Amino acid sequence: MVKASITGSIIGNVLLVLGLSILMGGTKYNEQRFNRTAARTSVISLSLAAIGLIIPTVFHLAADRSPGGWSAPVEQKLSLAIAVVLFFTYFCMLGFSLWTHKHFFQGAHAHAEERGRQWSRSKAITILLISTAVVGVLSEFLVGTIENVRDSVGLTEVFVGVIVVAIVGNAAEHSSAILMAMKNKMDLTVGIAIGSSLQIALFVAPVLIFLSYLFGRPMNLEFTMPEVVAVVASVYILFQISGDGETNWIEGIQLLSVYVILGILFFYLPEPQDIAP
Amino acid sequence: MVKASITGSIIGNVLLVLGLSILMGGTKYNEQRFNRTAARTSVISLSLAAIGLIIPTVFHLAADRSPGGWSAPVEQKLSLAIAVVLFFTYFCMLGFSLWTHKHFFQGAHAHAEERGRQWSRSKAITILLISTAVVGVLSEFLVGTIENVRDSVGLTEVFVGVIVVAIVGNAAEHSSAILMAMKNKMDLTVGIAIGSSLQIALFVAPVLIFLSYLFGRPMNLEFTMPEVVAVVASVYILFQISGDGETNWIEGIQLLSVYVILGILFFYLPEPQDIAP
Amino acid sequence: MVKASITGSIIGNVLLVLGLSILMGGTKYNEQRFNRTAARTSVISLSLAAIGLIIPTVFHLAADRSPGGWSAPVEQKLSLAIAVVLFFTYFCMLGFSLWTHKHFFQGAHAHAEERGRQWSRSKAITILLISTAVVGVLSEFLVGTIENVRDSVGLTEVFVGVIVVAIVGNAAEHSSAILMAMKNKMDLTVGIAIGSSLQIALFVAPVLIFLSYLFGRPMNLEFTMPEVVAVVASVYILFQISGDGETNWIEGIQLLSVYVILGILFFYLPEPQDIAP
Repeated sequence: MVKASITGSIIGNVLLVLGLSILMGGTKYNEQRFNRTAARTSVISLSLAAIGLIIPTVFHLAADRSPGGWSAPVEQKLSLAIAVVLFFTYFCMLGFSLWTHKHFFQGAHAHAEERGRQWSRSKAITILLISTAVVGVLSEFLVGTIENVRDSVGLTEVFVGVIVVAIVGNAAEHSSAILMAMKNKMDLTVGIAIGSSLQIALFVAPVLIFLSYLFGRPMNLEFTMPEVVAVVASVYILFQISGDGETNWIEGIQLLSVYVILGILFFYLPEPQDIAP
Repeated sequence: MVKASITGSIIGNVLLVLGLSILMGGTKYNEQRFNRTAARTSVISLSLAAIGLIIPTVFHLAADRSPGGWSAPVEQKLSLAIAVVLFFTYFCMLGFSLWTHKHFFQGAHAHAEERGRQWSRSKAITILLISTAVVGVLSEFLVGTIENVRDSVGLTEVFVGVIVVAIVGNAAEHSSAILMAMKNKMDLTVGIAIGSSLQIALFVAPVLIFLSYLFGRPMNLEFTMPEVVAVVASVYILFQISGDGETNWIEGIQLLSVYVILGILFFYLPEPQDIAP
Repeated sequence: MVKASITGSIIGNVLLVLGLSILMGGTKYNEQRFNRTAARTSVISLSLAAIGLIIPTVFHLAADRSPGGWSAPVEQKLSLAIAVVLFFTYFCMLGFSLWTHKHFFQGAHAHAEERGRQWSRSKAITILLISTAVVGVLSEFLVGTIENVRDSVGLTEVFVGVIVVAIVGNAAEHSSAILMAMKNKMDLTVGIAIGSSLQIALFVAPVLIFLSYLFGRPMNLEFTMPEVVAVVASVYILFQISGDGETNWIEGIQLLSVYVILGILFFYLPEPQDIAP
């Protein structure tokens, strides 16, 4: 379920959050712009993360064909090594965006701010903390409820993990990204949507691997094949959409269509058993 | 054979029609330009369609590995649901290009027209109807002939479907796209080539699924793995070629090389049996 | 081992050579620019080559599922036909860059030269020949040594082929590309890195196939699945990095991260037996 939620958060932010924001923004504005240099760096990091998440699955498939065969301990080591690389890249990205090239992102921010009212830093942080707490509590509550209800509704675990939990868990990003799009602050919208996916892929996923060792139940980074296809397809469409620094409503529809298509896949997919733990 | 023709029309338009047009245009003009904003929207929709066409195959492979296993009725439902999404996206694209953002496409059109002689609307429609009819009759005739000749020549059904039928069936797009490229109206060339692929993927394919239910012989959207690779490779190369709004002869060669490589694959491929119906 | 070296040279030049150059250049310059039109054409050719190198593997997997099954002689013919297409494309690229559109590449060259000291042609050629000879001798020596040492260190053959031989064998490209990046001549850096990969994929690989027939031991172009994934991932990341004609240090980190992730995969991969000869 943990890995399904990682997949779900990545594709949910990239396709659902960004798609809805672009669509809603597009109903109000004919064209909206954002800083494509900042977006490009993030999208490339997301592609890198997608490659990192593909490799353990490729390893499993390739090792299965060798005489030595696949073994769980080697998969663990491979996953741990990749997690270290992703984690390292995350801190490089932080250094890049907060230190050496902050003008890329600041410029975007200033540009976005100039047309909106400004919150004081303390007000912003307070509201951020309160809303995060509320959403967090609600998520926990809802995930528990969902788990109980799941069987009676007949949804598979993977569908709940990839689609339902992701929608509920990202409600905060969701509402703020749409709000910013409606205010024509697309830089913030894009920053929230891509930034959240990036954080999940380069920070949360590696940290979960590290923690799994602390708790003595090592986890690997191997995803099921449909999850790999979903992440690659999402990042690829994001790359195409974000390439020109402009958005319009049809791009929102395109992102949402891909999300719905992937949702259909996970809805009909029977419970897997041989790869996911 | 129907699904092979869908694949063949998509890759034929993207690689062969566009490739030959760019190459022929490139022999006359050093560089040719087209409106890349209009092209971008179409290429993204084509990527979306490619994702839609991959998913049923991914579903089959993934379901095969689960204890419940793959079942044809679920594949039908999945395909029908994806067909609805693609069909819906098609109408959104129509609304986008004919209504909310027609300046993208009109601008391109006006720009293309300014250097060419103008046909009256009635003359254009008449010629369009006549040539479509002629090509249609010829196609039917040729496809029938091909089918009869096929065994004696020793071509596989998939090669005929993907390569031969597609070349013959797209003769109309073919000749007009090249003609427009020779007249330096690249916007029209790109519009014809990408537009035809888009129509096949987002309109014809879903309609065939819907009709198959009317006739009581439900069809699914599952393609063979080589077809999936062919469509993904074509759309990916198209995305790279169309990204800069400029063309030159080497880009024609590149598209044609990919077409020839895919043609070689389908030529040597033995008749499949386990996936395609 | 030959095919592993081809894979290794392609990904080594694209990821390691270019990544290190961009990173080193990025420590000195905040942003560096290169001619993206010239880079685009090369990257598209590299994508085309990647598609060519995928197809024999797709063929094997698809043919395995047909009743006729896969056969080595058909795989040879397929590989030979693809090699001819790649070889033909290579000469078209030469014609494009040296003849019909040399201003793309000359402009880049002139631009790169204007800030650096100029070597006389004879001095340049002499140094080029000497350094190539030195590197060549060293490579041969090192590869021999590596082969002997391999077993005692416990590295797999595929890891040595893809990673070790490629690093040693591309030492020349390596040092000159980094040197040029430090001198802010990014056009030369990009030209060396992408050009070397292109030469391997479109010229060296086909020539090896042709020669294998002369020596009576026909070779095919079929790569293992991890090699295919490595090449596709590298070319895709290169396409994203090279799209804007600008580089900064984080892009170097991103390329190197992908290289390290792929290195981890090949390090842990057990010796394959059923596909690679």
